[in-house]
Amino acid sequence: MNIPSLADMLTAHERIKPHIHRTPVLTSHVIDEVAGAKLFFKCENFQKAGAFKARGASNAVFGLSDAQASKGVATHSSGNHGTCLSYAAGRRGIPCTVVMPRTAPQAKKDAVRGYGGKVVECEPSTLSREAVFAEVVAETDAEFVHPYNDPRVIAGQGSCSKELIEQVDTLDAVIAPIGGGGMVSGTCLTLSSLAPHIQIYAAEPEQADDAYRSFKAGRIIADDAPNTVADGLKVPLKELTWHFVSNHVSDILTASEEEIMDAMKLIWKRMKIVLEPSSAVPLATILKNRDVFAGKHVGVIVTGGNVDIDKLPWQ
Amino acid sequence: MNIPSLADMLTAHERIKPHIHRTPVLTSHVIDEVAGAKLFFKCENFQKAGAFKARGASNAVFGLSDAQASKGVATHSSGNHGTCLSYAAGRRGIPCTVVMPRTAPQAKKDAVRGYGGKVVECEPSTLSREAVFAEVVAETDAEFVHPYNDPRVIAGQGSCSKELIEQVDTLDAVIAPIGGGGMVSGTCLTLSSLAPHIQIYAAEPEQADDAYRSFKAGRIIADDAPNTVADGLKVPLKELTWHFVSNHVSDILTASEEEIMDAMKLIWKRMKIVLEPSSAVPLATILKNRDVFAGKHVGVIVTGGNVDIDKLPWQ
Repeated sequence: MNIPSLADMLTAHERIKPHIHRTPVLTSHVIDEVAGAKLFFKCENFQKAGAFKARGASNAVFGLSDAQASKGVATHSSGNHGTCLSYAAGRRGIPCTVVMPRTAPQAKKDAVRGYGGKVVECEPSTLSREAVFAEVVAETDAEFVHPYNDPRVIAGQGSCSKELIEQVDTLDAVIAPIGGGGMVSGTCLTLSSLAPHIQIYAAEPEQADDAYRSFKAGRIIADDAPNTVADGLKVPLKELTWHFVSNHVSDILTASEEEIMDAMKLIWKRMKIVLEPSSAVPLATILKNRDVFAGKHVGVIVTGGNVDIDKLPWQ
Repeated sequence: MNIPSLADMLTAHERIKPHIHRTPVLTSHVIDEVAGAKLFFKCENFQKAGAFKARGASNAVFGLSDAQASKGVATHSSGNHGTCLSYAAGRRGIPCTVVMPRTAPQAKKDAVRGYGGKVVECEPSTLSREAVFAEVVAETDAEFVHPYNDPRVIAGQGSCSKELIEQVDTLDAVIAPIGGGGMVSGTCLTLSSLAPHIQIYAAEPEQADDAYRSFKAGRIIADDAPNTVADGLKVPLKELTWHFVSNHVSDILTASEEEIMDAMKLIWKRMKIVLEPSSAVPLATILKNRDVFAGKHVGVIVTGGNVDIDKLPWQ
């Protein structure tokens, strides 16, 4: 396993700075009162391409040699990683191919194409995805950038909590949603070195609680086709992210679908920011576990803002 | 007519600073490309109580003598002014009564009560509203704070564009939505003295274009019960706001309901901020009048973020 180091994260941050936003940290007096804690929302919904994944994708793309870059990059993702990889490749002016199920939302396909990437459709099955992806790589010799189980991606995501601790120097804890674990791993990478006194929590939907069960069992357990409104969090941990999660996370907390939607609406209403359901899971778990966070200063990573506003989850 | 002066605005700004946010200015590369201009969004949707009206209301409330303040304040408003007056009165710890039609949305009544204000219901007619409001004032001797035709309110709203020109020093124009004209008048008050080279535009729904028609006719024309998704913009100009609009506004531009909703969705999707329909009218008119703004640096006042997310206008 090629575990990214603090130096890798620092290099990544310098490398990607021209291509990402240093996103703001917002607070809400009302939500603090509801939570009984002081919350600092790191707003990656304002990030380029609408999600923190622009960090890891940019690090992978801009770290390539010119020879490799000329062949382009490829991934399979029907979520933010595909869009963000296309964004980063577009910035470097190299080809990007994203394999997506033909059933993926049109908006997601349009987003990849909007940044200049190419969408190749597969059937909505792992078998088809792997076969189509193998064809793409065989044809193009493109560099595969995995959505999270990739040291370059994790090093890039780690730049988010580096900024956060520069912006807020009183944090007791940081909490981020967990799907495959890329953001949580980046957070662990950074904080375990630069601010080891800060506790790291991961937040997960009850209906896709494979990371929670893995954490309790001490080994990776993958869910079989979980279903949750937090559609960015359905994927399982992999070796690299399990390394960080199992070594550095204090606890994994879960919330129900209703609690996630209530938290999402609370943030929309009170903070006037658009965030996707996955990004509301941390607040949902904070409100459910007041004793854990009582009186603490907590960094809350708002991972993304790419939601279909024509079809909101509570409608 | 008691026309507020630049000194009144400067006093107002100092007075209200402890009670309002200095809201951020956001930009969007994508929207700039669509508009063919460089837009600077002054985000009053992040303002206390969710709207710029916290400025004028706070100025009125905190400018009262202790004797008058002890009797409280009162207004009639089913929109942001009622909520914001309740917010300001709550900060000062004085009574606030808001007369509202019984048919007003429950969320608006709850918002007033949430800040400690009292809601007194009337029938949804001007006659009933005036009768009930007269009773309230007779009983309480509360100070009436009009939503916009009040020099204290206009002086307070003027602090918004004072901040904006401190935050962005290259503006060629500023555009704000116009209903009763409180924000536009405050903008005129400030810019005509501090930055007279900046052109001031007002933006209005086609379906509630009384300010537009007044501007063209050279006298106040009031609409009879206009209907628009931009529900904050249905009220007519009054003497004080007409003074500022007729003297300092370069032009009033209008947009259709569909154009307003498209602009609102564009901002939600690309900027990831929640804004109310009224606040989208300026962008709608910019996109419709590209020639007017081509290549210019334009301040766009995002007046508020209080929208019912359970019932979005395009649904």
